[in-house]
Amino acid sequence: MTYTAPITEMRFALDAIADMPGIAGLPGYEEATPDLVDAILEEAGKLGAAVLAPLNHPGDREGSVYENGVVRTPKGFQEAYNQFVEGGWNSLPFDPDYGGQGMPWTLATAVQEIWQAANLSFGLCPLLTAGAVELLQEHGSEDQKQTYLPRMISGEWTGTMNLTEPQAGSDVGAVKTKAEPNGDHYLITGQKIYITFGEHDLTENIVHMVLARLPDAPAGTKGISLFLVPKFLVNEDGTLGPRNDLRCVSIEHKLGIKASPTAVMAYGDSGGAIGYLVGGENRGMACMFTMMNNARLAVGIQGVAIAERAYQQARAYAFDRTQSRALDGNAATVAIIRHPDVRRMLATMKAKTEAARAMTYWAAAALDRSKREPDEEARRGQQALLDLLIPVTKSWCTDIGCEVASLGIQIHGGMGFVEETGAAQHYRDARILPIYEGTNGIQALDLFTRKLLRDEGAAMTRLLMEMRAGLPKAEADSALAALREPLAESLEALDRATAWMLEQGGEDLLRGAASATPYQNLFGVVLGGWLLAQAAIEAARRAEDGSGDQSYLDGKLKTARFYADNLLGEAAGLAAAVTKGAESTLALADEQF
Amino acid sequence: MTYTAPITEMRFALDAIADMPGIAGLPGYEEATPDLVDAILEEAGKLGAAVLAPLNHPGDREGSVYENGVVRTPKGFQEAYNQFVEGGWNSLPFDPDYGGQGMPWTLATAVQEIWQAANLSFGLCPLLTAGAVELLQEHGSEDQKQTYLPRMISGEWTGTMNLTEPQAGSDVGAVKTKAEPNGDHYLITGQKIYITFGEHDLTENIVHMVLARLPDAPAGTKGISLFLVPKFLVNEDGTLGPRNDLRCVSIEHKLGIKASPTAVMAYGDSGGAIGYLVGGENRGMACMFTMMNNARLAVGIQGVAIAERAYQQARAYAFDRTQSRALDGNAATVAIIRHPDVRRMLATMKAKTEAARAMTYWAAAALDRSKREPDEEARRGQQALLDLLIPVTKSWCTDIGCEVASLGIQIHGGMGFVEETGAAQHYRDARILPIYEGTNGIQALDLFTRKLLRDEGAAMTRLLMEMRAGLPKAEADSALAALREPLAESLEALDRATAWMLEQGGEDLLRGAASATPYQNLFGVVLGGWLLAQAAIEAARRAEDGSGDQSYLDGKLKTARFYADNLLGEAAGLAAAVTKGAESTLALADEQF
Repeated sequence: MTYTAPITEMRFALDAIADMPGIAGLPGYEEATPDLVDAILEEAGKLGAAVLAPLNHPGDREGSVYENGVVRTPKGFQEAYNQFVEGGWNSLPFDPDYGGQGMPWTLATAVQEIWQAANLSFGLCPLLTAGAVELLQEHGSEDQKQTYLPRMISGEWTGTMNLTEPQAGSDVGAVKTKAEPNGDHYLITGQKIYITFGEHDLTENIVHMVLARLPDAPAGTKGISLFLVPKFLVNEDGTLGPRNDLRCVSIEHKLGIKASPTAVMAYGDSGGAIGYLVGGENRGMACMFTMMNNARLAVGIQGVAIAERAYQQARAYAFDRTQSRALDGNAATVAIIRHPDVRRMLATMKAKTEAARAMTYWAAAALDRSKREPDEEARRGQQALLDLLIPVTKSWCTDIGCEVASLGIQIHGGMGFVEETGAAQHYRDARILPIYEGTNGIQALDLFTRKLLRDEGAAMTRLLMEMRAGLPKAEADSALAALREPLAESLEALDRATAWMLEQGGEDLLRGAASATPYQNLFGVVLGGWLLAQAAIEAARRAEDGSGDQSYLDGKLKTARFYADNLLGEAAGLAAAVTKGAESTLALADEQF
Repeated sequence: MTYTAPITEMRFALDAIADMPGIAGLPGYEEATPDLVDAILEEAGKLGAAVLAPLNHPGDREGSVYENGVVRTPKGFQEAYNQFVEGGWNSLPFDPDYGGQGMPWTLATAVQEIWQAANLSFGLCPLLTAGAVELLQEHGSEDQKQTYLPRMISGEWTGTMNLTEPQAGSDVGAVKTKAEPNGDHYLITGQKIYITFGEHDLTENIVHMVLARLPDAPAGTKGISLFLVPKFLVNEDGTLGPRNDLRCVSIEHKLGIKASPTAVMAYGDSGGAIGYLVGGENRGMACMFTMMNNARLAVGIQGVAIAERAYQQARAYAFDRTQSRALDGNAATVAIIRHPDVRRMLATMKAKTEAARAMTYWAAAALDRSKREPDEEARRGQQALLDLLIPVTKSWCTDIGCEVASLGIQIHGGMGFVEETGAAQHYRDARILPIYEGTNGIQALDLFTRKLLRDEGAAMTRLLMEMRAGLPKAEADSALAALREPLAESLEALDRATAWMLEQGGEDLLRGAASATPYQNLFGVVLGGWLLAQAAIEAARRAEDGSGDQSYLDGKLKTARFYADNLLGEAAGLAAAVTKGAESTLALADEQF
């Protein structure tokens, strides 16, 4: 159950896929030199492996516990969090004006993978704080920033996102929580559910970002405003004042991420919690959109992270556990990695994890470039690419988290079903990822309507062109060239499906929506294969240069080949589902279910 | 969280797929008239819904508990088990000479689905007893049968299967438990793990079937013998004698099926547990093979059952939960079943569950026919079909159990991750199914080596011919005819893959083994689609006759069409993985993982 940060893999993906040197050349990111990147990954790896990872399984067993409004996180979490804050880890990508280190999101994304792989429950706390920080950085008043940002960026205070209510889940517009103007602030009343780290004992204050509705607000998403609602009010001098009128009512008993408290929060039981408007009246949804890409990318990273963790555990078991003779006729009992079906499962875990990592790092690079490219046209292009990548990255990587964790159990056989082994925890923990931060079905709708229809496929067409141009050359080294045909075929499938979504789907939104998930999955499968091919191309280049570990570089080629031969075939079926499936999906009448 | 036995579905599959009327025409099965079948399903449905299903969630919360060698099953399990026994349910398919009711396995399989869907943990107890009963029916001495069978068939005593040891999981041949001859019995010493209901408080005696090794036995599977080892010895007059030298050391803390105790058993701590040889010295594996088909079919049924349970729960939620407006522009918030992506998920759950049910019932019919067809040639043909169907039925239906349970969570959104909802339990419970009774990887190897290579593809070739002949006619009603092309294409893919497995796989077992799981999955996907088409053909026939509910019959056609359009496309990719994937699966070197 140990975890070692896969620094070599991360470093390879950062350079070969995300062009980390190019990112470090962007204005303001000059400090992110190769040496600093190495040092940061190294140190983060140490903290993750030595402090966070050992708390993962005990944290699951103990869980966070609720008693009379107070939430106690598992043993060791407080000390670990203190180390996390003291190490300055919380501040990595944030604004230096308020105490951040101003590092690229690309690097922060790689570091994020370490926290999430080491301890998904623990990692959620800074992940939510990051969302709140971003909101304040973008939309807070100078006064709000001065008061809250330094301590949230340092991690002394944590942040939460309060969106969901019992009747308002995927439909955020149905929020009913009320905000009444009251002098320089507002009085908030209402109940919020599924509030991650909504209450805990890690820090002395918690800053809640709460969506609520003003008295005369328009219906739906247009009438939602965002409020900063601290657990303890903050005095002029920065010290903590009285407790605000909000409390944790209970926490959920969940399938996984049990160490992470998921709170039901009550605001205003005694008249109204004091809240401060952020970003203007009825501007709540607009504010949320500015952090949505980042938050969804972070959940995609969680998918990569849990996959990596499950992969490491299954790999250790597969090389250690002996059982049965090999099929080659030798009489000795062998390690199960010698059995082709176990090898197939482990190779599947590896290939999918690496493809998902490549996708998230690539998206992170687009995030940095969309903000920092000197040329506006370039920034806009990267923003369009990022917007397109976000839904597929969030959904595909989180589905892979679940799938890889399941394969991890399977490799363990009966041991995998026993909780002490730890493989089952990854399976349980991973299952939230396709649900929160917008279900994967919501991502598919976002991809279809906002990312595809809105620009009439312009961004997707550009990406498809880039992917076509990036195919391994037919005349190249034969091992690389062998990737070309399956990839080109899958690209054609994605092309056909894209055309269908734009034309048929655009004409009939119900049919388009029925095909949106297969389309999103197809996008993920093809992009994943293409990214592994990019890694293989870079590996072949380095191998030719004679730079780097030849066996490692050869492994990149073999992994891309494994994916192309074994996994990419899915594309044809998914394209068929996109272009032919919608009608029969909608055909079953209610009473026929 | 309620469960209703889907009697209409079961009845349809029994008649349209398993030819229940034909089964009732086999010698000895004449009593299984349509009226009796109806009555049995009806009554089983009542017991399942009213008694077993309500214990499912509380049983999961409480779990079975171990204290000082004693295992306490959850509250209500004892009373439920008593009702189960008093109703005569345990005896349904067994030998009337020993108190059984001699009903067809086909019917018993349908009834089994009810118990497993109502309460998978509870259902495991009679499932294991059934395995022990079968072993004794086939291989026990007349004295052993007289002493044990009547009370095991009634369910007054339960049975267990003791195969696994820490070093002997998938490799049963590595069993080390010893059996020393000692007069008319043997003394058994050793430790067994993963013993389902190895200890419990439901009955006064437990009859353990234990694999062990005689002092001079040959190595491997050829030196394994089977012993009957009762918890309490049985006196001449049938009363219980002294406690045998065996005890439960502990039970596992598991991901799911928590109400079902999974015991570590110690035999012979005080000199040796008294055991009786069953089926002759070194004949243990041969004995096990006689019950293996039945046991694996039963686990396949568990997959169907958990899928059905998850489907019912998700369906109720999808029609009840309102969220967001529909895409058709209407302003009102709608039930989520109106959202195409939710509809797609629910249709996927429905189609896969029905396909899996059809597969298990069809296999059960082959089981009955392999034993009861008057013509020996026909019996042999059915036995060959059954042998072929067993691995794919066990693996495909259990994978579907997991997948459908996961979709069930997804439809619930955040609620699905909260344990109180109950959807998460199905997901946890289902995860054991691809592991026990031979992992799905072991099934794939069995399919490849024993079922395909051994007869050089003869049985598979016959089945492929039958499937081709059973395709909907091109000239038929257009809705049926539309199924023909996708099915024919997928059959061709299965054909190609079968040829590869026989030729390339036969030449190089390592490559064949690397492709065995994709091949098995391909077989399942295609057979599932074909079986749904058979259901659609029968539904169209009945609709033309004007017999039956027209909307229900039309639903069969639409379900087959949904599957063909949305799910069957997977076949092409799987066939590609079979024929092209093995090389790259085996290419990654150890250090490249």
